[in-house]
Amino acid sequence: MKLADFKVEQWMNDHEMQAKYNLTDTCSKEMSLKELLDLESIDLDMILDYGEITGSQAVKKGILSLYESGNYKQITTCHGCLEANMLVMQTLLEKGDHVITFSPGYQQFMEIPASLGCEVSILPLDAHWQPSLEAVKDALCANTKMVILNNPNNPTGISFSKAFVQGLIDLCKARKIYILCDEVYRGFSDDKSISDMYEWGISTSSLSKTLSLAGLRYGWIKADESIIHQINVRRDYAMISTGPLMDALATIALRHKTELMAANKARIETNKQTVREWLKDHPHFEVQLPEAATVSFLHFDYPISSVEFAEDCLAETGVFFVPGSCFGYESYLRLGLGQDSEKMKEGLAQLSVWCEKRFG
Amino acid sequence: MKLADFKVEQWMNDHEMQAKYNLTDTCSKEMSLKELLDLESIDLDMILDYGEITGSQAVKKGILSLYESGNYKQITTCHGCLEANMLVMQTLLEKGDHVITFSPGYQQFMEIPASLGCEVSILPLDAHWQPSLEAVKDALCANTKMVILNNPNNPTGISFSKAFVQGLIDLCKARKIYILCDEVYRGFSDDKSISDMYEWGISTSSLSKTLSLAGLRYGWIKADESIIHQINVRRDYAMISTGPLMDALATIALRHKTELMAANKARIETNKQTVREWLKDHPHFEVQLPEAATVSFLHFDYPISSVEFAEDCLAETGVFFVPGSCFGYESYLRLGLGQDSEKMKEGLAQLSVWCEKRFG
Repeated sequence: MKLADFKVEQWMNDHEMQAKYNLTDTCSKEMSLKELLDLESIDLDMILDYGEITGSQAVKKGILSLYESGNYKQITTCHGCLEANMLVMQTLLEKGDHVITFSPGYQQFMEIPASLGCEVSILPLDAHWQPSLEAVKDALCANTKMVILNNPNNPTGISFSKAFVQGLIDLCKARKIYILCDEVYRGFSDDKSISDMYEWGISTSSLSKTLSLAGLRYGWIKADESIIHQINVRRDYAMISTGPLMDALATIALRHKTELMAANKARIETNKQTVREWLKDHPHFEVQLPEAATVSFLHFDYPISSVEFAEDCLAETGVFFVPGSCFGYESYLRLGLGQDSEKMKEGLAQLSVWCEKRFG
Repeated sequence: MKLADFKVEQWMNDHEMQAKYNLTDTCSKEMSLKELLDLESIDLDMILDYGEITGSQAVKKGILSLYESGNYKQITTCHGCLEANMLVMQTLLEKGDHVITFSPGYQQFMEIPASLGCEVSILPLDAHWQPSLEAVKDALCANTKMVILNNPNNPTGISFSKAFVQGLIDLCKARKIYILCDEVYRGFSDDKSISDMYEWGISTSSLSKTLSLAGLRYGWIKADESIIHQINVRRDYAMISTGPLMDALATIALRHKTELMAANKARIETNKQTVREWLKDHPHFEVQLPEAATVSFLHFDYPISSVEFAEDCLAETGVFFVPGSCFGYESYLRLGLGQDSEKMKEGLAQLSVWCEKRFG
């Protein structure tokens, strides 16, 4: 089935290797293998067979520690949050279903349901990057099967209001509409998981954004047991297992989540402060900084397309952004907040020089 | 989209942990992490970010060493051969396409095209587990998009004849019909890859069956550059990358492929000899042993279903088989040939005792 290019991922693939100052990466600064193994060693005698198919008890225990409720049968594991989302959508959606999602948002949530023959309503977020419950109410149809969100949102980093989330659950509950919530940015604030609030809420996440381990490609799904069972049927066709090595490394990271997330949250705070200071001298830019997430959506008012901005800035300074156009928004750049703080300062300084030269 | 249970994988998931003598595993005896790292060390300072998106030059060089032709742009990497097959089928097949595959075979090749809305012709193999070129000719339609095979075949381990493969290519060439060949069992004989013989031939494979590393979940696709490009568009929605750790470990295994495969091939030979000896005293069983693959399809003539045989034998002796019914064939058991030779002898001895007790 033909899919449109996944614009943000394509942009990252095509340009990231040229970046000297990657100001657009949405991960927390990645650990080295040594740093991970310094936390705890692994059993070198482990046999590299398929391992426990849906994940070991140890890794599931670690995953459950990120939630308020749930048991081992409510978890299945996979390769990153992206695959988790795919498994959920491909398992539960059928041709003719109606799906609601939000913009700006993650293109996967629009393109994959459409490719499956679903009708997709894309509802715009408001000026504060909040969705409208009224708009959801208006969009609901007899065949609405799923509402899909990123919370906190990609690319804005903003969490949807608690009132909205509760209102959405109330709307969906009566008709058993699934809420798939990509919670890959959750963990730095007190946002609850949808899977702890709603029987038909499905949480997906990974180690990439909050635990500095994008390179393990380790993700999971948490949902009602009956949903996980259905997903595991498809999962047998798609991946078998994550393997025992990834399982063991993920277990270590999850056992040390408190210290890892504290360090990452502190880095986000430092980077947010850097951005605030920088903005004081740069009136052509503004951003609504998230309470606590590794991503934000930086607005600029120069008369230039976001693609031209991102391409020229990268070519001339090595400062790397994903242009807003990858999310359907002009005059924006995706600004990451989780990477090295010194590098971020240097990158913003380079950006200042470039803007001065380019726009006067 | 609802899928039927993947019978063989489901059976493995549900029963494998009870096995004392796993006579049905189709992998080569798996290495430990230590054994792999004893071959070559890895750079502990590697940063666990996404790494090179479609795979490093080093791992692609290793993969290409398994083929006669091809360049780096003809390779993309993923999590195991199962995911490779999924990416190929989901990318290239559309509702209304016609697909040809063979039985006994891998259920993924029947179920996934059907779930995508394709019409699927399943052609039976003959008594020597060979497909019929005439049957393919008869099955070809105006809308035939792809022929899918496992070569060597799962569950029989038998390679399709060179004459058949060449004849199939000749039939497909004029109409640019893709041939997807799951070559996960290839490597122990002189079978050529479909991707080295045919412009629209697509080879998928992994480290699981010939290189003893199922637990790395490392696979790849080799095909024409234009096909790989299309697959990479979908791949962005499905996985991003395998990550740098798996990439580095796979690179080590591929650099040592000659010694690893020689040891595994020798083990298969030993196990085949064990089976031949055992069969002399067990006239109720027969099997066509493969030239060189880790899997075979063992026939029995006891008046009992394959499920009852497999379940009772496992429960009473710990000897583990996948029943032929998982492949739609009664009176068969899938017999693996790649695992520990002593364990195999012990397992067959247990099986003898059980058959004597059960059937007299």
